Amino acid sequence: MVSCSLERLEDKIRTFSKFGDTGRGGITRFSLSPEALAARAEFKKRMEAIGAKVVTDDMANMYATLPGSENLSAILSGSHLDSVKQGGNYDGVLGVLTAMEAAETIVRENIPHRHPITVIVWTNEEGARFEPAMMSSGVICGKFDKETMLQSVAKDIPDYTFGQALRESGYAGDEKNRLSPDKHMALLELHVEQGPVLEAEGYDIGVVEGVCGMINYEFTFLGQADHAGTTPMKYRKDALYAAAKTIQYLHDELDELDGKLVYTTGKISCHPNIHTIIPDEVKFTLDARHQNPAVLRQVLEIIRKIPPEVEKCKVSYAEAWSRKTVAYAPELVDIVEKSAQECGYTNMRMYSGPGHDAQYVADVIPTTMIFVPSVEGHSHCELEYTPVSACLKGANVLLRTLLLIDKM
Amino acid sequence: MVSCSLERLEDKIRTFSKFGDTGRGGITRFSLSPEALAARAEFKKRMEAIGAKVVTDDMANMYATLPGSENLSAILSGSHLDSVKQGGNYDGVLGVLTAMEAAETIVRENIPHRHPITVIVWTNEEGARFEPAMMSSGVICGKFDKETMLQSVAKDIPDYTFGQALRESGYAGDEKNRLSPDKHMALLELHVEQGPVLEAEGYDIGVVEGVCGMINYEFTFLGQADHAGTTPMKYRKDALYAAAKTIQYLHDELDELDGKLVYTTGKISCHPNIHTIIPDEVKFTLDARHQNPAVLRQVLEIIRKIPPEVEKCKVSYAEAWSRKTVAYAPELVDIVEKSAQECGYTNMRMYSGPGHDAQYVADVIPTTMIFVPSVEGHSHCELEYTPVSACLKGANVLLRTLLLIDKM
Repeated sequence: MVSCSLERLEDKIRTFSKFGDTGRGGITRFSLSPEALAARAEFKKRMEAIGAKVVTDDMANMYATLPGSENLSAILSGSHLDSVKQGGNYDGVLGVLTAMEAAETIVRENIPHRHPITVIVWTNEEGARFEPAMMSSGVICGKFDKETMLQSVAKDIPDYTFGQALRESGYAGDEKNRLSPDKHMALLELHVEQGPVLEAEGYDIGVVEGVCGMINYEFTFLGQADHAGTTPMKYRKDALYAAAKTIQYLHDELDELDGKLVYTTGKISCHPNIHTIIPDEVKFTLDARHQNPAVLRQVLEIIRKIPPEVEKCKVSYAEAWSRKTVAYAPELVDIVEKSAQECGYTNMRMYSGPGHDAQYVADVIPTTMIFVPSVEGHSHCELEYTPVSACLKGANVLLRTLLLIDKM
Repeated sequence: MVSCSLERLEDKIRTFSKFGDTGRGGITRFSLSPEALAARAEFKKRMEAIGAKVVTDDMANMYATLPGSENLSAILSGSHLDSVKQGGNYDGVLGVLTAMEAAETIVRENIPHRHPITVIVWTNEEGARFEPAMMSSGVICGKFDKETMLQSVAKDIPDYTFGQALRESGYAGDEKNRLSPDKHMALLELHVEQGPVLEAEGYDIGVVEGVCGMINYEFTFLGQADHAGTTPMKYRKDALYAAAKTIQYLHDELDELDGKLVYTTGKISCHPNIHTIIPDEVKFTLDARHQNPAVLRQVLEIIRKIPPEVEKCKVSYAEAWSRKTVAYAPELVDIVEKSAQECGYTNMRMYSGPGHDAQYVADVIPTTMIFVPSVEGHSHCELEYTPVSACLKGANVLLRTLLLIDKM
């Protein structure tokens, strides 16, 4: 069985880790920054060197295509090259590098394929400098309005818009090059898991069935600000105590639901947040994710059971945002699983907690993803790490899946 | 029985409320600010108009003295004219205005007194612009080092020190004018309660026996920052959940202690405080106050029973600061109580939760305080309010107490 090259993949990872190197094991590579443009240039150079033709669409998404032997629609594979601030060397970029390596293996080994093979680089997946995340796949797939996105302002420079960055990048191309069902038959995205499950459970490959649905709520507790030294306990309306009790309530109740539910109270604010004043306004967020919408409905029922007053504080809550569960194409999921098995790699089916460009594409063409383990689950930080041997397994599953799809 | 004048007291409250008027029912009058200097000038003008001699000490504390009929040490009464940002028209200033009104009543009614009667204005009680609070009484009474205090930097102007503000104020006087046991026999401070007890229990006057001891602890919970969407619940170390559980534990345990204990978890911080990331570091404060040191020791025992790990997060804590219980002079407390009774005002003995300049003076000369009710307990805010009729009762108790001390 043909395999990708460990040495070549290692070289790719090492080379791309220089673009935005923080010097502490990670990168800061905001979309369309000089560092990201350097990574794009390297991508273009390497893909052209193996005979690919590189074009960009109007959102600067890059498509590097090896022609197929027949006049068929292309099979896409890739991810993004941008990172969060002080991010790691695997989130996103590994999906591009493994797709490059699969393509390079096909070329070097002269592996016949009927369909064109296209490696794709998405623009601004992280939304770290210009919100929102998954901006350009979102525009292409009809989730976001392009004109609104062009007005998105950089977090670090007043009035500097994404549209301006796009024009200055030199990578804004033609709308006709966009991903579309006419020209593209399927999309595969390899990604690091960004969680601890594969490593902890001892699996090489995550066969991704979809992306978990998610709800995000913000809770507000209104009490009464009074002096910590003069107000007897019985007269108090302590918004932080009410919030703490509610966090405990949510844990108690949500822990009774399905074991695959993940939920997080990650953000809290307290007013006036002075040690000698009883808090009068506390807010916290709840993020809950599960692949089954019925479980998220149970979460909502638990939220709705919170009484209107807790510890004499008024409670209110509102949905900040939500996402429906995305199911990937079952026939592609099966092919990924089969590929992993044929490669002799241990694998498990799983849902993705985080969002990925692939989830928007799933509405347009058959799509799925491949996960490789994240050591200790670290991601979006400089500790993010996946050994190159584990990355290679992912590349081999990706290559095999591309070739099996090519035979469909 | 001679009474202070409602009209005159109302005029004083109205006049002083102009200095730093926020236009929303309160004042911002930082110590030594132009607004505070205007209030000092009004104080000086009014006290000189009734025959008082006004001097200042080296910390700009003001002493306005009516001579007595004998060559004896003076009886002091007063408080402070500075406020917190957007504070009220009663905290501090009412202690000055009622002392002024008592002095004016003595002058207008030709009430004989053996001792000089001195109205005192303390500099920078709030510490709102230059920390710490009770700065100048602290210096005079040996709690703070003067040179260190002079270096205290304004919160709003870089490098602008308290020493500079003191020199520019024109109120820095002679160290020999400081309060001292040689020249001063006793101090009385009238203050608003800053809490809801007197109003809720239906009492006119609080006979203050002392100032509650206080401990202030900061707790730190160290967990692990991980992705909210990828980390199964069983692998999590959620520092906010650990903190919420500990807040609940503290409430459960502390509520079993003496009913007069007040405790507050007023301040919380959470890192990284992002709704999609499990918090890895959460800190919160605990402020606990009681008049009986044995109860505060019980609080400490409860703190020490917190396990070193809560929800797999490491727990640590440290005392941020503490204050021993201050007992006021029992013979003066008795006189205040007797005065209130003779005036026909309902009264209750109580301890002060907040600190006051008087607590430092209590180490130097016999000292006590008189509280009047705070409507709904509001203080340090624009809602702070005490009806003038209630203020007048305080002024009358103050006057009567001064005259009874004069006979000691």
